[in-house]
Amino acid sequence: MEGISNEACSLAGHWGLGKLIAFYDDNHISIDGDTEIAFTENVDTRFEALGWHVIWVKNGNTGYDEIRDAIKEAKAVKDKPTLIKVTTTIGFGSPNKANSYSVHGSALGAKEVEATRQNLGWPYEPFHVPEDVKSHWSRHVAEGAAFEAEWNAKFAEYENKYPEDTAELKFIITGELPAGWEKALPKSLSAKSQCSGNCPPGLLGGSADITSSNMTLLKMFGDFQKNTPRERNVRFGAREHGMAAICNGIALHSPGLIPYCATFLVFTDYMRAAMRLSALSEAGVIYVMTHDSIGVGGNGPTHQPIEHLASFRAMPNILTIRPADGNETAGAYKMAVINRKRPSVIALSKQKLPQLPGTSIEGVEKGGYIEITIPVPDVILIGTGSELEIAAKAGDELIKEGKAVRVVSFVCWEVFDEQCDEYKESVLPAAVTARVSIEAGSTFGWEKIVGDKGIAIGIHQFGASAPAQKLYMEFGITIEAVVAAAKELYMLSF
Amino acid sequence: MEGISNEACSLAGHWGLGKLIAFYDDNHISIDGDTEIAFTENVDTRFEALGWHVIWVKNGNTGYDEIRDAIKEAKAVKDKPTLIKVTTTIGFGSPNKANSYSVHGSALGAKEVEATRQNLGWPYEPFHVPEDVKSHWSRHVAEGAAFEAEWNAKFAEYENKYPEDTAELKFIITGELPAGWEKALPKSLSAKSQCSGNCPPGLLGGSADITSSNMTLLKMFGDFQKNTPRERNVRFGAREHGMAAICNGIALHSPGLIPYCATFLVFTDYMRAAMRLSALSEAGVIYVMTHDSIGVGGNGPTHQPIEHLASFRAMPNILTIRPADGNETAGAYKMAVINRKRPSVIALSKQKLPQLPGTSIEGVEKGGYIEITIPVPDVILIGTGSELEIAAKAGDELIKEGKAVRVVSFVCWEVFDEQCDEYKESVLPAAVTARVSIEAGSTFGWEKIVGDKGIAIGIHQFGASAPAQKLYMEFGITIEAVVAAAKELYMLSF
Repeated sequence: MEGISNEACSLAGHWGLGKLIAFYDDNHISIDGDTEIAFTENVDTRFEALGWHVIWVKNGNTGYDEIRDAIKEAKAVKDKPTLIKVTTTIGFGSPNKANSYSVHGSALGAKEVEATRQNLGWPYEPFHVPEDVKSHWSRHVAEGAAFEAEWNAKFAEYENKYPEDTAELKFIITGELPAGWEKALPKSLSAKSQCSGNCPPGLLGGSADITSSNMTLLKMFGDFQKNTPRERNVRFGAREHGMAAICNGIALHSPGLIPYCATFLVFTDYMRAAMRLSALSEAGVIYVMTHDSIGVGGNGPTHQPIEHLASFRAMPNILTIRPADGNETAGAYKMAVINRKRPSVIALSKQKLPQLPGTSIEGVEKGGYIEITIPVPDVILIGTGSELEIAAKAGDELIKEGKAVRVVSFVCWEVFDEQCDEYKESVLPAAVTARVSIEAGSTFGWEKIVGDKGIAIGIHQFGASAPAQKLYMEFGITIEAVVAAAKELYMLSF
Repeated sequence: MEGISNEACSLAGHWGLGKLIAFYDDNHISIDGDTEIAFTENVDTRFEALGWHVIWVKNGNTGYDEIRDAIKEAKAVKDKPTLIKVTTTIGFGSPNKANSYSVHGSALGAKEVEATRQNLGWPYEPFHVPEDVKSHWSRHVAEGAAFEAEWNAKFAEYENKYPEDTAELKFIITGELPAGWEKALPKSLSAKSQCSGNCPPGLLGGSADITSSNMTLLKMFGDFQKNTPRERNVRFGAREHGMAAICNGIALHSPGLIPYCATFLVFTDYMRAAMRLSALSEAGVIYVMTHDSIGVGGNGPTHQPIEHLASFRAMPNILTIRPADGNETAGAYKMAVINRKRPSVIALSKQKLPQLPGTSIEGVEKGGYIEITIPVPDVILIGTGSELEIAAKAGDELIKEGKAVRVVSFVCWEVFDEQCDEYKESVLPAAVTARVSIEAGSTFGWEKIVGDKGIAIGIHQFGASAPAQKLYMEFGITIEAVVAAAKELYMLSF
């Protein structure tokens, strides 16, 4: 029923994933009752329409041979995924709420366990493995060792013949990165497009139908399609949820596969469930999320994220990285690639941004760092992404007026939090309570950084459709606003 | 391609929505190129499988008569929705990225506008309506007035015959609520099930296949199905995204329709895009989100929300209400029903909760209020939902030890923010900086409430699978933790 299954199965059909066999237990049970109350579509026909081979096993309860035959048939179909629909009845008579719930929600009770033991003739204690069972299974130990030896010999032969390909394969199997891979880091917002030969061999991915807006094409590769499985640009179509879930699968398949996927930041709402699974399953997917603020302009509030940065900063085990220029973008990709057990959201602007003087990859690796400083500052200005430039310009203005100002890039909260107390104090000294933050999004959560006496500049309503510059003026995300806030605090503290 | 369309269309087929006619412009264009790169399924067959009537217009560019015939045929099919698939070519030759993008993303340029004017023989200034066009259209004014008079007469006749039904219909059309509707507010967490005859006549909705867990059945009504369209319990199946989108449609259809939908709070991740549209479109959908913390127990972290409350508090124009007991649940429903231009997330626990002494509907309407107080408190304890009880018990303990304590229920941040400064100061006096908050979720954002000197107790990692009580102990969401934090602050401030 879930939409994501149609997205994923449509792609499986499109790609002709002949090795994929899915079992559909058509037991007519849902938690609320017989599936007839909400689900009367023809599943067989739908899957055929999606390009699948469909087999129907009518007697799933006892038709073991039919199931075996179905698997055999499915394996023989090499150019399509197969759905084996198995009709089963759960033996309670016609399904009703109580029964269906017990199947879905509850473990067997003591009574049912006892009856099952009786029925199977199983007299042993829980967790006891009888000797004959153990010896029967132990034959796999020798068998497995033989398989492994055979594989190792084959692999050695392969390595001998194709040393370069083998090196690449090893990177993918082990997750080790080739020497010098950092040199291939993109230096501009047109990101991956610059990724050259040194880039991680397991890097692959794509966009949900906005490749050119996201600028995520790997230019030296072609499209991953049915007949070109070696290529690395995946065309997900407008299927964000399926895209993120597929990337989870790729990431968890092998430590050296580094999947990335891309769309507009606001559309993370379509795939948030899969992104949370990345975080929960420690799948280091790289989410390249462009158009990260009202700066998208004309497309209006449906395309303008407001609460999204806050919503990911609140999520456990995911990095929210919002680089301000080319240096920081390179740093963001470096962090994202290195973090194989933690997904990253790299939030990038639509607007072209200038290279700022004080930014660095090393700074990004600390999460937050000083971009401009006058020793012993009276006021700290804090920005992220496209607003770091605004903070820096406000800083310049205040410095010209003789104020002692520090500008801090706060590119990744999670990583800054992990730094030692000394470092954190060196960037944000507790004594300096006059702090102004600026970010074109909800200020929810910024109180932690600016403190009781600070001022967080942001947006607390949905955006609007207008040119980016006009919107920034209208919503008060401006140099003037930062200067005014800083002066207000500055006056208070003297 | 989007999964939500399959969810919605599957339900449209299930319900046999014969009045629904959808046009599918099969122009083979996607932003990234010809749809063939990601979308090769058979759409006709898929929609037939979903229970739709499908008509294919092969020449959509010039086949006006075929399109008219298709609409006629679609209107004649009363028991199924119809998909009219229209094959079109956009006249650029074979689609490529540049062309498709111009169709999707850009307005016509000055040159194309000029060519179109020439082609249509349209010499007028922009926004000029020529006299003959105006008079041609003006005939609709009289026509419309006649239709309206006819309708009014018919309605008066109907009202005369069926005064009660008409009263109900008027409530739905106008959005006015029947006198005394508040008396029907549910007083326990088994919520709507108690809603009696006085409840708003436009209230309808359901759950995404966990009705009994959400306790959202309207007991005096049956299931809304193809042959029982008068009933009000909607069986959405496991289709959260479609469910929320359908509720948006219901809410926007008529001011008096009050749709609610339900699932576990963590599964809002599946429907967040539609929830954001509720907020953006001012659609007062009521989201009944149960199982709102690690308190769900055994189902583990996939079912345990952590960051969700924060993520909705950061979203504009949506109320996040987390009631602590029956009184507050009644208050939450009252606020949700009254707010027709603002959706509500009502976060409810799985755990049974006791009725607390100081709670009230009026309190909920202020967003935050004093539950227990000793005049001139030294410490303020702040809780929401299931943790208000913990805060209250910690308060009792501290009061027994002679401490001057206040316990505050912080049930809805957004509404508290809207109160006047005097009220806010009366609940959270600026002078009392010793504040402890407790909520079984991310503390992200709580710095705003507890301030620089306060302590926010919460969870910063994913949950685990164990009985609720054990998890609360393990993650430190306890009376002892609140008491210890309060004492730490208490000592500091003396």
